[in-house]
Amino acid sequence: MPVQRADARRNYARILAVAEEEVAAHGADASLEQIARIAGVGSATVRRHFPGRQALLQAVFSERIEALCARAEELAGAGDARAALLEWLGALTTYAASARGLADALVQDGMATDDPAHVNACSARLNGAVDPLLRNAAQAGAVSPDVTVTDLVTLVTGIALATEHHPDPTAEAHRLLALTVRGISPQG
Amino acid sequence: MPVQRADARRNYARILAVAEEEVAAHGADASLEQIARIAGVGSATVRRHFPGRQALLQAVFSERIEALCARAEELAGAGDARAALLEWLGALTTYAASARGLADALVQDGMATDDPAHVNACSARLNGAVDPLLRNAAQAGAVSPDVTVTDLVTLVTGIALATEHHPDPTAEAHRLLALTVRGISPQG
Repeated sequence: MPVQRADARRNYARILAVAEEEVAAHGADASLEQIARIAGVGSATVRRHFPGRQALLQAVFSERIEALCARAEELAGAGDARAALLEWLGALTTYAASARGLADALVQDGMATDDPAHVNACSARLNGAVDPLLRNAAQAGAVSPDVTVTDLVTLVTGIALATEHHPDPTAEAHRLLALTVRGISPQG
Repeated sequence: MPVQRADARRNYARILAVAEEEVAAHGADASLEQIARIAGVGSATVRRHFPGRQALLQAVFSERIEALCARAEELAGAGDARAALLEWLGALTTYAASARGLADALVQDGMATDDPAHVNACSARLNGAVDPLLRNAAQAGAVSPDVTVTDLVTLVTGIALATEHHPDPTAEAHRLLALTVRGISPQG
């Protein structure tokens, strides 16, 4: 792999950061020209780093999944296993609510990325990173042992999808996450 | 309102029943020609009862909402308020999982019907019918008093949206509903 010059690395990071914000605001329809403009680079520079929209969306998606994995790994060492899991679920909810593309990709309908192998690799990476957090919580009796990482991701994704037309989707998604965590009717 | 002849009423009911099944199978894209064929009537007969796709989808949607309201009113008199609410949530989940159009319409993104006034009227009707059930459950201490009918519909709709690509969406939606009812982590 060739060593990237420092300015090329900076451009890459800047384009990716802008792309994350644009995808959060406009979903998978985010404009590549608009991303280049905000990042202060030419369209040719964007294309050199990301051959097309698909490559850019995949990079954004991977970046978000990596951030969620890093957060899970950080939290896995925390003393309070229940608080750690709930904090991670909160981070997942914020991401899902801010990125329609992410929510879609997580339910694998191929809007954010048409490459199922890529989605599956991300999904496996997420499962591996979050599983210790979930197992700690189960050992602490804070979550039922039959609950899987996929269950959590599906529930949060569903909340994000069902609240996207709300005036304040992020706040509403967190309110419904809290209700889902404590249960609609936990007793009995 | 003119008195419909008996065969016209039968045709209407048959077309609506077939339309419900076709919408459940194919969502809002259900073919009007296919519906006419299965119902054993001509396209002209379908158009006489339903001037267009929109009118037919609205009738299907209204029929489903009416059935959910009737079930809620039936269950409001039940002795076990918690069981009654959970049974109704189960019925809502089955409907939502079987009809992508319904799930979409319930989150009001206008896929199943482009008439927001109609969706709002249905939503108000549903809220009015389910509210006694929810209040009974709250009085019995089976649900927190701050939970609204909209919260329940949003959570179930989210589960339906997030499980629609699952090999068995109805079973998976009911499994995640059960998890949401008891809570991901109810203690604490």
